[in-house]
Amino acid sequence: VPAHVPSPTAPLSEIDTPALLLRRPALERNIAKMAGRFHDAPVRLRPHFKSNKCLHIARLQLAAGAVGITCAKLGEAEALIDGGVTDILIANQIVGPIKIARLMDLRRRADVMVAVDDADNVAQLSAAATAAGLELRVLVEVDVGMGRCGVRPGEPALTLARTVAGSPGLHFMGLQTYEGHLQEVTPYEERRRRALEDMQKAVQTRRLIEDAGLPVAIVSGVGTGTHTISGLVEGIDELQVGSYATMDAEYARVGGADFEHALSVLATVVSRPAAGVAIVDVGLKSIAAEFGFPLVRIDGAEYTEFHEEHGTLTLGEAAQDLCAGDKIELIPSHGCTTCNLYDVMHVLDADDRFVELWPIEGRGRAQ
Amino acid sequence: VPAHVPSPTAPLSEIDTPALLLRRPALERNIAKMAGRFHDAPVRLRPHFKSNKCLHIARLQLAAGAVGITCAKLGEAEALIDGGVTDILIANQIVGPIKIARLMDLRRRADVMVAVDDADNVAQLSAAATAAGLELRVLVEVDVGMGRCGVRPGEPALTLARTVAGSPGLHFMGLQTYEGHLQEVTPYEERRRRALEDMQKAVQTRRLIEDAGLPVAIVSGVGTGTHTISGLVEGIDELQVGSYATMDAEYARVGGADFEHALSVLATVVSRPAAGVAIVDVGLKSIAAEFGFPLVRIDGAEYTEFHEEHGTLTLGEAAQDLCAGDKIELIPSHGCTTCNLYDVMHVLDADDRFVELWPIEGRGRAQ
Repeated sequence: VPAHVPSPTAPLSEIDTPALLLRRPALERNIAKMAGRFHDAPVRLRPHFKSNKCLHIARLQLAAGAVGITCAKLGEAEALIDGGVTDILIANQIVGPIKIARLMDLRRRADVMVAVDDADNVAQLSAAATAAGLELRVLVEVDVGMGRCGVRPGEPALTLARTVAGSPGLHFMGLQTYEGHLQEVTPYEERRRRALEDMQKAVQTRRLIEDAGLPVAIVSGVGTGTHTISGLVEGIDELQVGSYATMDAEYARVGGADFEHALSVLATVVSRPAAGVAIVDVGLKSIAAEFGFPLVRIDGAEYTEFHEEHGTLTLGEAAQDLCAGDKIELIPSHGCTTCNLYDVMHVLDADDRFVELWPIEGRGRAQ
Repeated sequence: VPAHVPSPTAPLSEIDTPALLLRRPALERNIAKMAGRFHDAPVRLRPHFKSNKCLHIARLQLAAGAVGITCAKLGEAEALIDGGVTDILIANQIVGPIKIARLMDLRRRADVMVAVDDADNVAQLSAAATAAGLELRVLVEVDVGMGRCGVRPGEPALTLARTVAGSPGLHFMGLQTYEGHLQEVTPYEERRRRALEDMQKAVQTRRLIEDAGLPVAIVSGVGTGTHTISGLVEGIDELQVGSYATMDAEYARVGGADFEHALSVLATVVSRPAAGVAIVDVGLKSIAAEFGFPLVRIDGAEYTEFHEEHGTLTLGEAAQDLCAGDKIELIPSHGCTTCNLYDVMHVLDADDRFVELWPIEGRGRAQ
């Protein structure tokens, strides 16, 4: 809980800074838009928790029809289970005895599913599940081009799928894939061409495995930047879209993601050292930097330098009246890593009045 | 508290990842070295809390002779006061009614000192202190070249110093300055030349103010990268060095800071997708990126790509045996922002055995 909690209906000026703001009406419109887009499609939504790490948002997504939640880490799955979510995909490898023991503890409480890309890891998961008397759902991760985790499409994936299917305690469910390398490709037509090409690798692998007699219930992948492309590919079952719910400046910049900015960081001008310069209290510890500078939500001001605890704004004509003490909003370039810096979101209503604090239960759950 | 807490004397293999490791013997040697370096000098140490945000470390620094602690934010000062620290410099402007009210609450509990660079802010602090029946110590921030907050050296600083000195409830104590723009200048000789030049601006401003009849008790500034230069300048009273205690890869790279790496991030190899590639479970959410890639603490491996939850290692000959499940250590490029991502440090003894968890009380205290 922050040192200063605003009263209900307080305006922005009564929120202490830095603060993560969440406009609930925009969030709800984003969730409804994505749900509506796939309502009559065969594909299902399993939104990614890593993007906002907030249980309130996950519950709104489930209420809008999502079949479950995707997350990146065991610790996030723990937060989801503590919050009552039961159908969870941890879209990564769970490696090593400590983590596998934690996974088994979670499996007792919820129907957690994990990704694998290595036969030794499969053997370890199988041994642990068998010893615990549990059955664990497993997706084989296929690398369709990102060059991170995953086996190659085709035969290597089939081989590992057979290994999983033949392992006691494990239930082969299908494929995990993510065309993360394409999410920000511009122009959109190029992104489209490459995503269709890479998704075919996943779909062909699916067919190969099915032809070998192994049922494939789930091929899961796809991000906000490719949902209008990969989400329509036949043979893709689940979308792991995350950023769409709150949106960020990077996805707005690259296009193909028509959602509203529901998330921002409230900053205070703490100094006006020169005519064209303002210093705000939001720097590297309070907003993401890896995708570039945040957008400033007032005319005539640009965020032009990150410091650890400060940001430098360069001011044009329209912003010369900015004073020390003024509050301004910054749209983070990357929402996922920004949310990971905050314990709570300050939720705003349609009139930009403070409603309540939402905890960010997954913050820092990197283990 | 992490989901898995190692037993006392557990080896690294029994620590879950990502984990922030702190080698206590190296930390203590670093603290002793810095304290010893200025033991017989007129300059005093007021180490910066922003670098590690850990009360255990602050207490070791105070035990080694530091006169107090510097911090960046009110929230950090709250954490320090809760931990029993009484002499605290918040080396930034405290702007706006919410923060000034919080500052007065803190002033009731400890002798907090703040920086100012604006007459309106001085008037607001004076009004609040007077209304609360308190006296607040104030430093005038002078910008000696960083181009962030602060008034210009010379007359502008004198003018503001007079304003502070004439304001009821405020006690003019001296100057805050920080040559942050020079901390990583290479070669060291160039850093030295420029730091001596910029520090003279602070010292000359001090003389100007003293000549005008205002006593200057404290000129505070200086970082780890310039402590061997600026720390020896006559007229500089307090050093705000922070990173030296735990050290990071950036300060090692630029030289001039002969301290040991006491801080690292423990990672697990989660995938070996190709011969020369390993994927670890430490990405942008678990280690700083703004000063470049972390150093890998094994031969033949380089961290070559950040992902949100993963890192890509490129492996040479010497590291080809690395397997999924292996644990490796990464030295963060920037310690300050890395510590801000963790709730606890895993403290190790001289044999790299786990000793205990130290909370990072200042984590996320950006307000």
